[in-house]
Amino acid sequence: MVVAEQDDRLAALEARVRVLEDQATLYRLIAGWGPAADTANGQAAASFWAENAVLQAESMHIEGSAGVRAMIDSDGQQALVQQGCAHVQSLPVVQIDGDRATAINYGRVYLRGEDAYDIWRVSANCWEFARTADGWHVTRRVAHVIDGGPEARGLLGRATSRMRGAP
Amino acid sequence: MVVAEQDDRLAALEARVRVLEDQATLYRLIAGWGPAADTANGQAAASFWAENAVLQAESMHIEGSAGVRAMIDSDGQQALVQQGCAHVQSLPVVQIDGDRATAINYGRVYLRGEDAYDIWRVSANCWEFARTADGWHVTRRVAHVIDGGPEARGLLGRATSRMRGAP
Amino acid sequence: MVVAEQDDRLAALEARVRVLEDQATLYRLIAGWGPAADTANGQAAASFWAENAVLQAESMHIEGSAGVRAMIDSDGQQALVQQGCAHVQSLPVVQIDGDRATAINYGRVYLRGEDAYDIWRVSANCWEFARTADGWHVTRRVAHVIDGGPEARGLLGRATSRMRGAP
Repeated sequence: MVVAEQDDRLAALEARVRVLEDQATLYRLIAGWGPAADTANGQAAASFWAENAVLQAESMHIEGSAGVRAMIDSDGQQALVQQGCAHVQSLPVVQIDGDRATAINYGRVYLRGEDAYDIWRVSANCWEFARTADGWHVTRRVAHVIDGGPEARGLLGRATSRMRGAP
Repeated sequence: MVVAEQDDRLAALEARVRVLEDQATLYRLIAGWGPAADTANGQAAASFWAENAVLQAESMHIEGSAGVRAMIDSDGQQALVQQGCAHVQSLPVVQIDGDRATAINYGRVYLRGEDAYDIWRVSANCWEFARTADGWHVTRRVAHVIDGGPEARGLLGRATSRMRGAP
Repeated sequence: MVVAEQDDRLAALEARVRVLEDQATLYRLIAGWGPAADTANGQAAASFWAENAVLQAESMHIEGSAGVRAMIDSDGQQALVQQGCAHVQSLPVVQIDGDRATAINYGRVYLRGEDAYDIWRVSANCWEFARTADGWHVTRRVAHVIDGGPEARGLLGRATSRMRGAP
């Protein structure tokens, strides 16, 4: 009887710890994007994207981890890296639902200028993840530059819609 | 005997997991502030503030979650959102003491300019939280712009005072 | 038999929770650096550095927690603080291996200017930590400004080398 009760408590703890570990993993995937982008390491960047993932931003639409890899390995990305760039991801609002998860955060791209750094880009990001046999992968990331328009607000609204009492 | 020992270990684990979950929740409340502010969604912003909370910054003193809601819904905030703004919160130093918690971090407001983004505001923030039957809420946030003066340093000092060996 | 099985599950959970706690502690040490630097509180800054730690950046090489303390207490640091500075650390990629750990992230130094803030410095950071009887301490931090050169890329590459499938 007591043992059965302990069994339930163990199972509950195991489930709670798993969610915490999932959250740590998702933080890590998000935090790892910058180092991969800023070293133009397409293989590393693509390694945590699902094979059929989608990366979308303004007019850009990239398909698959192979597409992510090609973008990060491109001449344009290499030029940014040679100038000195930092793709920094902010603390995300993560929502985990079993084997699916989303995260909303801000990305900023700092570019080396003559005397200081310029902030070339500030964007709202919505990340989607799926857990596979091989761990968590990004299945979709939609980003939109913060420009006063409705697109970025729409992405950020996906974070607020999960807060208590939100419409 | 062995079962009683396991009971103690279970209880200890449950308490430790609860602290980790609390920390994740507080990170989430802090990370959620930006998306609410940058969509001028007063209801979402106010949803995780206590009814009698206080929001203070330089000469501003706002009372209650209703006051927070009114500020986020105001014309001034709407104008910032139309221009393109991002309120980004940094990784906080969180201290949890049972049903109370504090967090110290930096806030930055990026504003869309003509060619790049301006950093309109960098502030030191001290957040206070309380756990209620309805979960964690912000009970007080004091922010002060980083201007070389003693106020912001006083807020940041609340983080350092909790480090090992600090005065 | 059942009790022995529960014992194994308890031990596994205890180990997993410990890693999560370690990660939270390392986040906290990283997040605490800014508040110590921006209040020029050398004692607080040094309190989480190992006695024989090394702090390296470009041409700078500082030895020991005493060296860290002296740097933070220096006139140069005080001048930055009087002008208004914010040393903000980004979400890190943390890797824990027992009693050792590393973290890769970005640091930014915002300086108060006339009308807005300048970004004086954006750097890649590689932190190394060790667990002692007295808790986790920084044993080494190597930072390099993001300038398009290979040094910062080398530090960031230490994060990508830990991602799945990376070279």
